[in-house]
Amino acid sequence: MADLGDIRIVLVETSHPGNIGAAARAMKTMGLRDLVLVAPADYPCVEATARAAGADDLLAAARVVPTLAEAIDDCALVFGATARLRSLRWPVVTAREAAAMAIDAPAGGKVAMVFGRERTGLSNDELARCQKLLNIPVDPGFSSLNLAAAVQVVSYELRVAALGDRPAQSDQPPEEYAPAGMIDSFHQQLEQDLIEIGFLDPDNPRQLPLKLRRLFAKARPTINEIKILRGILKGLSRKRNATNR
Amino acid sequence: MADLGDIRIVLVETSHPGNIGAAARAMKTMGLRDLVLVAPADYPCVEATARAAGADDLLAAARVVPTLAEAIDDCALVFGATARLRSLRWPVVTAREAAAMAIDAPAGGKVAMVFGRERTGLSNDELARCQKLLNIPVDPGFSSLNLAAAVQVVSYELRVAALGDRPAQSDQPPEEYAPAGMIDSFHQQLEQDLIEIGFLDPDNPRQLPLKLRRLFAKARPTINEIKILRGILKGLSRKRNATNR
Repeated sequence: MADLGDIRIVLVETSHPGNIGAAARAMKTMGLRDLVLVAPADYPCVEATARAAGADDLLAAARVVPTLAEAIDDCALVFGATARLRSLRWPVVTAREAAAMAIDAPAGGKVAMVFGRERTGLSNDELARCQKLLNIPVDPGFSSLNLAAAVQVVSYELRVAALGDRPAQSDQPPEEYAPAGMIDSFHQQLEQDLIEIGFLDPDNPRQLPLKLRRLFAKARPTINEIKILRGILKGLSRKRNATNR
Repeated sequence: MADLGDIRIVLVETSHPGNIGAAARAMKTMGLRDLVLVAPADYPCVEATARAAGADDLLAAARVVPTLAEAIDDCALVFGATARLRSLRWPVVTAREAAAMAIDAPAGGKVAMVFGRERTGLSNDELARCQKLLNIPVDPGFSSLNLAAAVQVVSYELRVAALGDRPAQSDQPPEEYAPAGMIDSFHQQLEQDLIEIGFLDPDNPRQLPLKLRRLFAKARPTINEIKILRGILKGLSRKRNATNR
């Protein structure tokens, strides 16, 4: 299995330096670091550094080369991003499939994800140097995906693939759910109080207790939450008794 | 099943109008159209329109409201994006899980994806109005995901979920693969020619024909490609015969 360190982002003849900076930022948020620029129009440039917003270390380490061939020379697997699917017949995969293939590639072998020019993408000659075309499924009616946005989507897919299907996790340890007995005694108290205030008729309950139990079952309360609810019932009861006195 | 038209992007107190424009562009590339802005710092603004790059129709249709409550009032399901997972204990899902849940929601019911301020995200009060927190798995060492980039990732996941697991398809009809008999007769010709030039010894072939067959099997050639290969063999043979004369 490859890791994110084995994966290179290659930007070919980028016109706007801001896009290079934003692409570097997109890469770094997802744990990618290897950026190669093929004949950028205007680089280095303050606008690139500004848009990198803290990913300037990644920009500083980026290699600038004159041709795509040099950028991918050591890569065992090369994907070429294309927004529209051209007349060129070539194996096409989705961004998600490409990410899975990149991460499944043998460790240590370099994998390149190649992105073309803002307006015209990659030429057919360049696409022919790629083993697979990578397609991000844009709306056919508005396929104007920004270059850095495309790098963001692909970098994100690579990170998700590298992490595996790990679920999102809170920083906090999970709270303990209230045990069934605790929930039941809360409901008994609640029903008692509802009878006391005349809201629940014990001779004709009309499923009200059942509905309340279902409601709280859906919420799956924690011990703390049940304690809060019991506190509320106790406070209400104390108030009633004070008023009735 | 919901469709992309049922899904709303809500941006809360966005500071930079450029991010609003870039978010609109990100949405439109993925087929989303419903944008609501909660108390934007500077809007409308030429910078928003510039960065929208053709998604200005979506900006023009965006609603501006003073509070998050108004933005999500009619929504049956609300996700709040958070980069870091706070002290607040709340159900957390990945962007991918959120997209699947949004598309699985009943058709016609509105679903909101809420994004907070550039620097500080959503407040705990705002997150508490969301049923689920949506987490994009950024690198913990550099979690500075741009707002529009986050909208791009979530919009992309929504589009992929809405499309289902449809494979990437070329505009072109697939070419017909060469039938086995055609491939076999090409190999017979190739072997014959290799014998003729002395490269293949029929009495001691040493797996060469087998290796060649395996090579072309991996390529899975089309009818056109086999015709090209046969043409090359024929050309080479004609050349040899002319030279030998």
